[in-house]
Amino acid sequence: MSEQKPLLLYTGPTPNGHKVSIMLEELKAVYGNVVDYDVEKIDISTNRQKEPWFIALNPNGRIPVLVDRKHEPEPFNVFETAAILLYLVRKFDSKGIFTFPVGSDDESVMLQWIFFAHGGVGPMQGQAHHFNKYAPVDIPYGKKRYSDETARLYNVLNIRLQDREYLAGPGKGKLSVADINVIPWVRLHAGAGIETLDAFPNTKAWVERLLQRPGVQAGLRVP
Amino acid sequence: MSEQKPLLLYTGPTPNGHKVSIMLEELKAVYGNVVDYDVEKIDISTNRQKEPWFIALNPNGRIPVLVDRKHEPEPFNVFETAAILLYLVRKFDSKGIFTFPVGSDDESVMLQWIFFAHGGVGPMQGQAHHFNKYAPVDIPYGKKRYSDETARLYNVLNIRLQDREYLAGPGKGKLSVADINVIPWVRLHAGAGIETLDAFPNTKAWVERLLQRPGVQAGLRVP
Repeated sequence: MSEQKPLLLYTGPTPNGHKVSIMLEELKAVYGNVVDYDVEKIDISTNRQKEPWFIALNPNGRIPVLVDRKHEPEPFNVFETAAILLYLVRKFDSKGIFTFPVGSDDESVMLQWIFFAHGGVGPMQGQAHHFNKYAPVDIPYGKKRYSDETARLYNVLNIRLQDREYLAGPGKGKLSVADINVIPWVRLHAGAGIETLDAFPNTKAWVERLLQRPGVQAGLRVP
Repeated sequence: MSEQKPLLLYTGPTPNGHKVSIMLEELKAVYGNVVDYDVEKIDISTNRQKEPWFIALNPNGRIPVLVDRKHEPEPFNVFETAAILLYLVRKFDSKGIFTFPVGSDDESVMLQWIFFAHGGVGPMQGQAHHFNKYAPVDIPYGKKRYSDETARLYNVLNIRLQDREYLAGPGKGKLSVADINVIPWVRLHAGAGIETLDAFPNTKAWVERLLQRPGVQAGLRVP
């Protein structure tokens, strides 16, 4: 039997799950086994994430949840994807490769783009997916409302990425939590009724840049 | 003519605007005039927040935006409500009254509840308000979907607040950014089609506790 890995990730093959597995794979590529993790796949179609044992981990009943098994004096649970990403970089990214100094202007900019995605792209694109693919009734108003809003948010990214490679950091920026926190949504644009990213060339180039990274590719294969 | 105040807040009488004015009033009550701020009210009904000068402050075209006029070497703009709150406590809350030590478990817990509100309560209750009050067509599916989701999220708060007074912090917790970041939404429950909070007694008691604070009351009067 192999020893337990330091982290345990409850997750599923969704954009929010993939944010965390991408972050973990990018950190593993730099820091190695201290960031290694076991994966427990939660089949959300059976509502396992609403069972009492899971509600004890996350009262919101949503994947992903991270358990830091090595945390003293006892394991520590983290829910909400962006909070998990920030926990991971604070604990493991000692070189500050994927983040910026605590309290710096660059860190504030990173947080602004994290919140932009967390309150905008995620929930609004999620609603676009719902009305376009999952709703039991056809509601053109809902389809249009959320596809239009998702497109508007992609255009905000497009404005930000003019002359930049990444969302945060001086100059052209550097890959940080801000990018990892939103790429798993934008790559699924078709599910939101946005067939191509051609109308958002900077956003499109940024998606292609990120999808070429081995860490991003590895994270998208989990679970 | 009085001198410019150290901060400038572009805002409006909305839940997201009120989060920031509450935070500022609470900080002012402790730290005084170093946290004083001018207010420029943006009439969002005229889409002033979509004009180029505003997009230069916030490419997302949304209030609130904070300008830190005393920032060196030049003024610094912060958008996204939760990012503004975190900027304010990092810069001004030197005693750590409304936050927790950087990198601590308590800070992570605070961030988890901030993201819970920023990606859940805010956007979902916002959609409930839209379908219940503002949509040009009557769409029962939309009303029910978002009122139900808002109620579910209030219940998550209710679970969290069992035997607690505030969302984050040891024991019964203490007032922090986590609470200030969500109270302006929950107090407007009726707009989301949830007439009373009686089904969520811990959430209801927490709302009443917060609304008694002079800082919260002062923040809700801005602009």
